[in-house]
Amino acid sequence: MDEHNISKAVIRRLPRYHRYLGYLIDEKVERISSNELSRRMKVTASQIRQDLNNFGGFGQQGYGYNVKYLYQEIGKILGLDKTYSMIVIGSGNLGQAIANYVKFEKRGMHVIGLFDCNEALKGKLVRDIPIRMIDELPEFLQNNKVDIATLTLPKAGAEAVAGVIVENGVRAIWNFAHTDLELPDDVIVENVHLSESLMQLTYKINHSAADRE
Amino acid sequence: MDEHNISKAVIRRLPRYHRYLGYLIDEKVERISSNELSRRMKVTASQIRQDLNNFGGFGQQGYGYNVKYLYQEIGKILGLDKTYSMIVIGSGNLGQAIANYVKFEKRGMHVIGLFDCNEALKGKLVRDIPIRMIDELPEFLQNNKVDIATLTLPKAGAEAVAGVIVENGVRAIWNFAHTDLELPDDVIVENVHLSESLMQLTYKINHSAADRE
Repeated sequence: MDEHNISKAVIRRLPRYHRYLGYLIDEKVERISSNELSRRMKVTASQIRQDLNNFGGFGQQGYGYNVKYLYQEIGKILGLDKTYSMIVIGSGNLGQAIANYVKFEKRGMHVIGLFDCNEALKGKLVRDIPIRMIDELPEFLQNNKVDIATLTLPKAGAEAVAGVIVENGVRAIWNFAHTDLELPDDVIVENVHLSESLMQLTYKINHSAADRE
Repeated sequence: MDEHNISKAVIRRLPRYHRYLGYLIDEKVERISSNELSRRMKVTASQIRQDLNNFGGFGQQGYGYNVKYLYQEIGKILGLDKTYSMIVIGSGNLGQAIANYVKFEKRGMHVIGLFDCNEALKGKLVRDIPIRMIDELPEFLQNNKVDIATLTLPKAGAEAVAGVIVENGVRAIWNFAHTDLELPDDVIVENVHLSESLMQLTYKINHSAADRE
């Protein structure tokens, strides 16, 4: 399968297909047509056919998609068939929320370390993992393979710590700090800028009435 | 200014322009060319000109953009010149993180209530607001104007509570529960599905090497 020409927009939509296919598996549905999937997902059937055609051979005219096969293939494309070790830097409410989010564990995500600069949190257990002080980070990274570093700390701290984790071999960052980190090209970053999401909401609050006119 | 034809993609990019213009204001920069903004934001100058042309009249050939004016106008479009009252339903780590996130307050966001179904949290103060039990929610909504309800509770709880808040007049939902809420057309929803963001990261971990070949 030629995955390299798949557009970013399609990749962004894949998790939602994966989720709905998971619901279908729970309901013991074995095959589904693009029309039925369209009704459930509130996306046009032609969009579904176009998106899933990227992977080739999943659907058959008049026969529908094999739910379990498609679920597994999309899971593989998204890298969900593998396991990942994660550390969380910034162990306040947001960092603890992420460490506790059970679903992540189900998806092969193993939190192996939490860090903070607040002495009051030192040694506190989150999912049986003690919160470590940030000065222990370089040594921890030298002794442990870390696939993903999650940054749930303020902007200035995130910028300071990003260099340290990259120097020590981390190649993927899940960044919640409200800044665009300056990193080498071979470092992967996925940003979650919550305030930008909130601005989409305030935009819609002010424009939705007009849009419907 | 004709805002109604602006594409969703442009609207998604506006918060980032707003953020960089804010940095420029902090640096006391009064005017900026699209080329210089391009260098800072790592976006092409032609994309910047195209995006900002949607609002008309901000830029002048050879003269650049008026930073403060553009910052204010984009802020107005995003609805940042207004204030909003918010409640947070689900007062675990994620809900508390949102309520504590100081920046939201700066953006005119006022958290006026927190709710949970866990009796152990009853009365606990977050930013001087006591956590209330979920059965108090309908009465609270009848007595208080709530612009935005943030849902930071599990899927089943979110689906159950969404009906209650909509029946009681809330018209905008910031949804962190990993489900597509079924709501009337006049209710605005902005979803933050963290596990979908994480899947973008695991996708990139598995495909970035190949993409660079």
